[in-house]
Amino acid sequence: MSLPSLDSIETPAALVDEDRLEKNLQKAAVYVREHGLRWRPHTKTHKVPELAVRQLQAGASGVTVATPREAEVMGAVADDVLLAYSPVGASKLTRLMALPGRVRLSVAVDSREVLAGLAEAAHGAGRRVGVLVELDLGMRRVGVPTPEEAVTLAREAAGTQGLEYQGVMFYPGHIRMPLAEQGPALAEVSRRLGTFLEALGAAGLKPGIVSGGSTPTLWRSHEVVGMNEIRPGITPFFDRASAWMGACGWDEVAYSVLATVVSTAVPGQAVIDAGSKALAKEELPVGGYGALLERPDVVVHALSEEHGMLDLSRTAWRPRVGERVRVVPNHVCVSVNLQDELWAVRGGQVVGRWDVTGRGRGTSLKT
Amino acid sequence: MSLPSLDSIETPAALVDEDRLEKNLQKAAVYVREHGLRWRPHTKTHKVPELAVRQLQAGASGVTVATPREAEVMGAVADDVLLAYSPVGASKLTRLMALPGRVRLSVAVDSREVLAGLAEAAHGAGRRVGVLVELDLGMRRVGVPTPEEAVTLAREAAGTQGLEYQGVMFYPGHIRMPLAEQGPALAEVSRRLGTFLEALGAAGLKPGIVSGGSTPTLWRSHEVVGMNEIRPGITPFFDRASAWMGACGWDEVAYSVLATVVSTAVPGQAVIDAGSKALAKEELPVGGYGALLERPDVVVHALSEEHGMLDLSRTAWRPRVGERVRVVPNHVCVSVNLQDELWAVRGGQVVGRWDVTGRGRGTSLKT
Repeated sequence: MSLPSLDSIETPAALVDEDRLEKNLQKAAVYVREHGLRWRPHTKTHKVPELAVRQLQAGASGVTVATPREAEVMGAVADDVLLAYSPVGASKLTRLMALPGRVRLSVAVDSREVLAGLAEAAHGAGRRVGVLVELDLGMRRVGVPTPEEAVTLAREAAGTQGLEYQGVMFYPGHIRMPLAEQGPALAEVSRRLGTFLEALGAAGLKPGIVSGGSTPTLWRSHEVVGMNEIRPGITPFFDRASAWMGACGWDEVAYSVLATVVSTAVPGQAVIDAGSKALAKEELPVGGYGALLERPDVVVHALSEEHGMLDLSRTAWRPRVGERVRVVPNHVCVSVNLQDELWAVRGGQVVGRWDVTGRGRGTSLKT
Repeated sequence: MSLPSLDSIETPAALVDEDRLEKNLQKAAVYVREHGLRWRPHTKTHKVPELAVRQLQAGASGVTVATPREAEVMGAVADDVLLAYSPVGASKLTRLMALPGRVRLSVAVDSREVLAGLAEAAHGAGRRVGVLVELDLGMRRVGVPTPEEAVTLAREAAGTQGLEYQGVMFYPGHIRMPLAEQGPALAEVSRRLGTFLEALGAAGLKPGIVSGGSTPTLWRSHEVVGMNEIRPGITPFFDRASAWMGACGWDEVAYSVLATVVSTAVPGQAVIDAGSKALAKEELPVGGYGALLERPDVVVHALSEEHGMLDLSRTAWRPRVGERVRVVPNHVCVSVNLQDELWAVRGGQVVGRWDVTGRGRGTSLKT
């Protein structure tokens, strides 16, 4: 397929700025090298195997995934796949066990039920599966909340045939304030992590891998004492939330949704053809669902499924019907998940195209 | 493909209750017959051509769509397609003009720019396209806000070769309060519509089609004076918002997302494998992002991408890891848009499967 011109691409369309993407990859690579951290980026953000390859080439030691579909797609290009999600149910386990034999699969586990299911599946498949015991360090989503439970689970994993106890993981997803204000929350994560590491060490279960990290906390990851691996997802692209939190500058945001102004009929407003089915409707404390890449003072203040309403109250700009704009969504992961494809652009040129292959469940697809 | 058992379907998975679906279709059909309304249901909700066929068989006169992709998919099964969205840009216009010749295409227009583009495309394709002038009756999204502008646009449409002025359309999407409280808002819509109809009549441009309607206002559609067509989308499925507004009873909701409990590690909480990438994160005044079909007192109080957090504070139910539940999302249209397929179920049996064919942009697909 020959590449179209940017002007001829039908909107809404997801664009990735190639130069910024590459800079973002390198910046993360330098950071982890400097701080001696392993880097297993979460590929749920882009769901594109070609982009996982770029991350591996930049120095990632493997990839993180959330679903069997992502594991299948990323397992085709990566030899080290961490499923940062407890697999429950025969279908998911069967698909995981069918990953190519060269793939070192590790799985997050926070219950004996999941551990038992995983052990049975691994045994049935004659496969060895790594286990990371998932800890709750304050997010209160999943993960065992006490060191005693972590020790119990780690001991069981270590003693189960087919499983290999590799360490612990956590996700500090509750830390979503601006970078400069994260100090106390990061110290608390360190403190809580310390109690788990101490208990595991005392039980002879010192974790080899201590995996954490997120995009909001990325550049302060080295402050978490004991953590030796990070799994940020959003980093290569960034989004409006990342910029708001200071995890990136506005001029580092590599992802945007190209949209066309379709109506200016209602006074004081311009409507674009990117709605919640292209941007996703996720809130930010600062308000709105996105902002224009080249006019960040213009915010998407309301979203219908196929309509994005631009607030023109803070700009003298008055677009015409047919004019095109690039919108930075609040949360890039859920916007990418709404796209069939991503277009790589450099300047005003389309230079590549990626299918969002890891999207969906893939239960009806031949993978 | 043989149908799987409900127990073996990988979660999250979208289910449609066949019996409720059929009842919902018939109830809408009876209502429009009784009130002498034309019915052009919006297929953005399901995006499934087989379901559009069911709506046509139940008495719909045609279908409504929002995107070129939906027009292509629905144009394969319907002879009357209304694009309730202004098409802007060469790609969209080209695709619309390539619809089969038997399809009577009508398009919503609220600007001279869109009208001009449509006229040029229709002329180039040797095609006749119907025009509905879109009115803003209080939603303030799109649509001309004054009768004078409606007359100008209708006159231009009526005088343009290749176009056929058919009437007006509007969407009362701002009426989202409970059914019993809608009276004053519906009266105001009637009043505003009246001023448009009077001006158009006086200008010799009496609209043949006066198209409006929504699911929240569905059962009070006959109170809008002058409206002769409705386009509800959510009606066959319904959702938590519909039930909250009283557009349906909880026992009429036909759509749910089957999910599995994956963690109970954090006390007072159960986590399911349906997150914002299966349910969509859309707010409701009543709080939460969904509720369990068979336990509506259990609400999804938080959503990550692949995690749904169930609030167990109002129930004695304590699920185990592996237990399955059905979740009714707040907004069904955006949940369906996240699915590859819908499973038709009756009782505990899977009785059918539909691809969500109209999803996405379809720009890279052979349609």
